[in-house]
Amino acid sequence: MSKILIFGHQSPDTDAITSAITFSHLQNALGKETEAVALGKTTAETQYALDQFGVEAPRIITTAAEETQEVMLVDHNEAQQSVPDIDKVKVLAVVDHHRIANFQTANPLLYRAEPVGCTNTIILKMYKENNVGIPKHIAGLMLSAIISDTLLLKSPTCTEEDEKAAKELAEIAGVELEAYGKELLKAGTDTSSKNADM
Amino acid sequence: MSKILIFGHQSPDTDAITSAITFSHLQNALGKETEAVALGKTTAETQYALDQFGVEAPRIITTAAEETQEVMLVDHNEAQQSVPDIDKVKVLAVVDHHRIANFQTANPLLYRAEPVGCTNTIILKMYKENNVGIPKHIAGLMLSAIISDTLLLKSPTCTEEDEKAAKELAEIAGVELEAYGKELLKAGTDTSSKNADM
Ligand SMILES: [Mn+2]
Ligand SMILES: [Mn+2]
Ligand SMILES: [Mn+2]
Ligand SMILES: [Mn+2]
Repeated sequence: MSKILIFGHQSPDTDAITSAITFSHLQNALGKETEAVALGKTTAETQYALDQFGVEAPRIITTAAEETQEVMLVDHNEAQQSVPDIDKVKVLAVVDHHRIANFQTANPLLYRAEPVGCTNTIILKMYKENNVGIPKHIAGLMLSAIISDTLLLKSPTCTEEDEKAAKELAEIAGVELEAYGKELLKAGTDTSSKNADM
Repeated sequence: MSKILIFGHQSPDTDAITSAITFSHLQNALGKETEAVALGKTTAETQYALDQFGVEAPRIITTAAEETQEVMLVDHNEAQQSVPDIDKVKVLAVVDHHRIANFQTANPLLYRAEPVGCTNTIILKMYKENNVGIPKHIAGLMLSAIISDTLLLKSPTCTEEDEKAAKELAEIAGVELEAYGKELLKAGTDTSSKNADM
């Protein structure tokens, strides 16, 4: 059977890329066969985070139905932000922190959305609920996404949960939150390639 | 400020009525001001469960917007199964086990769906995740909903999680699962008033 593909939105930001990686790691630990992929190139900011924690950028896909029948969406749900042939595959799961619109399924599914600042804040909770340990590189990627989505805990969308998660993840990742956060955001502004924040 | 109203679908079955009550109890324990209401009369089956655990049937509403600005939906998400003026209020949360369709929001929200046999199986997990204790009467109502939606753990939609939840809840509720389950389902067939299973 083909692998379940997991991906974030088009023009991926750091949360879209890393939540695919971190949610795929969780699903695989729970016995599923999944692969994190991307709907576009990583930005300089995201690449900095991947390099920092020794993780390869996910391969880019332009179609899902040609290689799988089942997908999981992270950091988005709206069809127009997803893979172009999203209507040809079965969505098994969604983890997201945005409004719900232009999304429907034929079957029941796992849908986990919370009004927090970052998809990875929700994924961290799911690791804990399922008693799955968080390796250092996964913690580093989750932390990078929270820093990116909340502008180092300063955005109006940042919640107490995001802040608590960031502090906890910084410890597991072995980095100093403020210092690493500034470096990461600086890496993103060093270039014009940053994707629009979604 | 007016209370947040929590309700299940029209023509409510036992899961629709009781998940409003059990999710409202959880939300109130977490500091929100909510009230469980219903979009229709309770069936004989549901009334049997309510009587068994000494709980009043929720009052029936025909409009939400006239008394509140904020609602939470349980055991449904589709607009045509909800309160007629659902488009005039803000949906803060949804807990459900059905497909997602004809549902959209302007803002991020809490959306918790899992492909299990009963909404109360998901709500039980949320009690645990939030470390909120489950009183005997709440356990009895949750159990009744699982028995009703899974036809005493025999329906094709019943999962291992529903089964595990039912056994655990029967202990807290102080009833024998098989015996109580048969009585409850019998109470529902003693009359023609049972609503269509949704
Ligand atoms: Mn995000
Ligand atoms: Mn994003
Ligand atoms: Mn149900
Ligand atoms: Mn129902």
